[in-house]
Amino acid sequence: MAVTISNIPILLFTNFVCIMILFCRLKKIVAKQYNSFKIKHSLILYKYSGRNMYVPEHFKENRPEEITRIIENFPLAMLVVNSKNGFIANHLPLLVNKSSKKEIELIGHIAKANSLYKEIDNNDDVLVIFRSEDAYISPNWYPSRKNREHVPTWNYQAVHLHGNITFSKEKKFLLKTVEQLTKVYEQKNHKEYDWNINSVASKFMSSMLNEIIGIKIVVSKQIAKSKLSQNREKEDINNVYKELKNKGFEFLANSMKKL
Amino acid sequence: MAVTISNIPILLFTNFVCIMILFCRLKKIVAKQYNSFKIKHSLILYKYSGRNMYVPEHFKENRPEEITRIIENFPLAMLVVNSKNGFIANHLPLLVNKSSKKEIELIGHIAKANSLYKEIDNNDDVLVIFRSEDAYISPNWYPSRKNREHVPTWNYQAVHLHGNITFSKEKKFLLKTVEQLTKVYEQKNHKEYDWNINSVASKFMSSMLNEIIGIKIVVSKQIAKSKLSQNREKEDINNVYKELKNKGFEFLANSMKKL
Repeated sequence: MAVTISNIPILLFTNFVCIMILFCRLKKIVAKQYNSFKIKHSLILYKYSGRNMYVPEHFKENRPEEITRIIENFPLAMLVVNSKNGFIANHLPLLVNKSSKKEIELIGHIAKANSLYKEIDNNDDVLVIFRSEDAYISPNWYPSRKNREHVPTWNYQAVHLHGNITFSKEKKFLLKTVEQLTKVYEQKNHKEYDWNINSVASKFMSSMLNEIIGIKIVVSKQIAKSKLSQNREKEDINNVYKELKNKGFEFLANSMKKL
Repeated sequence: MAVTISNIPILLFTNFVCIMILFCRLKKIVAKQYNSFKIKHSLILYKYSGRNMYVPEHFKENRPEEITRIIENFPLAMLVVNSKNGFIANHLPLLVNKSSKKEIELIGHIAKANSLYKEIDNNDDVLVIFRSEDAYISPNWYPSRKNREHVPTWNYQAVHLHGNITFSKEKKFLLKTVEQLTKVYEQKNHKEYDWNINSVASKFMSSMLNEIIGIKIVVSKQIAKSKLSQNREKEDINNVYKELKNKGFEFLANSMKKL
């Protein structure tokens, strides 16, 4: 088609449509990459709006290594769903799937006898909570009480992951999940990889896999809180640390040192 | 009115109405009392229907004293609500209100800056979760592994209380709640009632109470789970107890002994 005055409007329109299509695709790609980057680096800098766990600015936990430390040390997650019959919460160990490249993905499994997978649908919203040690903090632990008044509080760390769940009966996924979970926790307990899925006959393992349902949760929003006396004076922080350490709250005390 | 043949139907009808009204009221009173009794004595003998936490028969926890032990030793509850904007979970210490005579009632408070009380309405459904210590259980801990095969699992105890929430700004309620909470945890920490609300000036306490919102949760359904290797052989149970004790899981090991 030769360029003539009469078909300029058609050309302009076609160009405009092409540019718009390209722009939309690009926007989608950038948004996806940015989203994935944000999650991977715990950079969801949400503003507390009342629609999440209450986290004042000074208790906000954005350090990826600290979030990983909480999840890995306290892996028994609380999985909360909202079925048509109300809340259902279950407790199960979940792992961050390190082989997933795009998003933060949690993997685990439930018993087949747990009909959770019938109560909700694939892709439904879920909330996963990991929580570390917690302790009552007495106002008597603050040396600054000589000069000013205080009230009691509670220290803890919590990671809330909002995402979408998928259930899977696929043998390959189940085997991989069970293998990873076992490897991590056996190593944690024995400092070496002691019991593993090859310790049992494959026929037995196969019958066991038949009794579970795999779970995959793709995380879309991450909110974490480290309530560790950050808002206190230096001498108070030091003494809270000492008191916690003395009382056996090793993890919580160490979390204070890592701030 | 004299009883004559002609007004017998009217009399019968009036009697019938009166009896029905009485019957309905009585039914209501009995149901309420029964409900309250069931809750107080942890006798909600629900059958697992997939609409609750998954609890196989042998892990069901119905002992009131054990449920109280879990709540009192691990009082930092997870309070889960479903707002119009999705799940909101918060972590806060909750106490069973011993002065409430009719139902199981939990009391506590949130910061006024936590707009949870704006996100949901009074009387909305909530889920409260208390969880005690938890630990990975290695198949290597079962002496019976010489004769039969095993897989890893996780032991823990959890109490789920479903109920309805009320928020309160009433000073008297707030003061009572703060007083009770402090008394319980100060005693727990120091074996004596050390810091109390009279330790600070009433003006300061008043300004503090101004910063919180009281919470009252009337419990309508209670589900508790003690996953403590009950389904294992005697020698396996004994060794799991020993391993947990050695690894410092004091509470969990003691829970096994209390079975």
